[in-house]
Amino acid sequence: MNIILTVILFLSTLLLPLTLCAKDIPDALSIIHNRKSVRHFTGQAVAKEDLEIILKAGMAAPTAVNKQPWSFVVVTDRKDLDALAVVLPYAKMLDQAGAAIVVCAIPNQAFNGSAEFAIIDSTCASENILLAAEALGLGALWTAVYPDKDRIKAVRDILNIPQEVIPLNVIPVGHPTGEDKPKDKYKLENIHWGKWS
Amino acid sequence: MNIILTVILFLSTLLLPLTLCAKDIPDALSIIHNRKSVRHFTGQAVAKEDLEIILKAGMAAPTAVNKQPWSFVVVTDRKDLDALAVVLPYAKMLDQAGAAIVVCAIPNQAFNGSAEFAIIDSTCASENILLAAEALGLGALWTAVYPDKDRIKAVRDILNIPQEVIPLNVIPVGHPTGEDKPKDKYKLENIHWGKWS
Repeated sequence: MNIILTVILFLSTLLLPLTLCAKDIPDALSIIHNRKSVRHFTGQAVAKEDLEIILKAGMAAPTAVNKQPWSFVVVTDRKDLDALAVVLPYAKMLDQAGAAIVVCAIPNQAFNGSAEFAIIDSTCASENILLAAEALGLGALWTAVYPDKDRIKAVRDILNIPQEVIPLNVIPVGHPTGEDKPKDKYKLENIHWGKWS
Repeated sequence: MNIILTVILFLSTLLLPLTLCAKDIPDALSIIHNRKSVRHFTGQAVAKEDLEIILKAGMAAPTAVNKQPWSFVVVTDRKDLDALAVVLPYAKMLDQAGAAIVVCAIPNQAFNGSAEFAIIDSTCASENILLAAEALGLGALWTAVYPDKDRIKAVRDILNIPQEVIPLNVIPVGHPTGEDKPKDKYKLENIHWGKWS
């Protein structure tokens, strides 16, 4: 009887690692490699606390001379999501996304007032946002606004974004259907050891 | 006797989650928040397999229309690291870094031949590189080359980088002394819920 109890206890505690680890966010390298451009969403809403975790990850990105020349517009209103889908040819999946984050670059706040640094810093934030969405089991993708002048104007108009602020992208965020898969893009020929040639 | 065995087995299997989880790379959100600009290195070399893991993470970044308009120069030669430190005013820590990765943007290979997309795509790769270094327990930071014309020319000259290729940054990689700490940059005022105003 005691032996049976021992075996049961032993087997049940063996399951502990699974339950403890499974609740955790997956490791960083797995998330980097599992991140994919998710274009198919279930239509479910995204929890506000998840959006906050994602925004927090965005703001953890590095910026030139720590200027943080960015802002984030979070769109969950169906009318606005649909309006964005109309003006952005590659963002039609907004119709099933629960939310969209518009990463805005602010040249006036960047190091040296530089548009280049504002774009670069906001791009680092955007990559963190894409990774954080994947980490939470959500899906996301970068749909480009900048550098297209017409799209910049259209997104500014829909979301009341000031003239001196550049909407860099619209990142639809939602619950993935599971059909989008990551790509393997590792190419040895893109690495130069030592010097270019 | 059996009870003692049961208790010992139970307690020892309780330790399993610790050993199993501890060996793993930390979770993605922790790495995003623990990433910091590391400016103090021990001088130790960086293992080639770690550099390969980091480069692989870089190439997992998204690119506009999947063009992957990038290349990576990996510098470990002391003479070249020192030469880069001479021409880059904010990269003096190269003297103790084990390696440097120069992320290169290639406009000709980008969507629409666009320098903007080449820079953005290579910036996403750079952020992945910074995160992967942190995930491996290494330190790294972005030292800017682009958009400074003089620095672009100087880095091209040292590493034989072709004219049509833009060295975006020099990322020193090394073993951190531990004195650099992450910053909390989460600011509620940077979030606009709904519309800008």
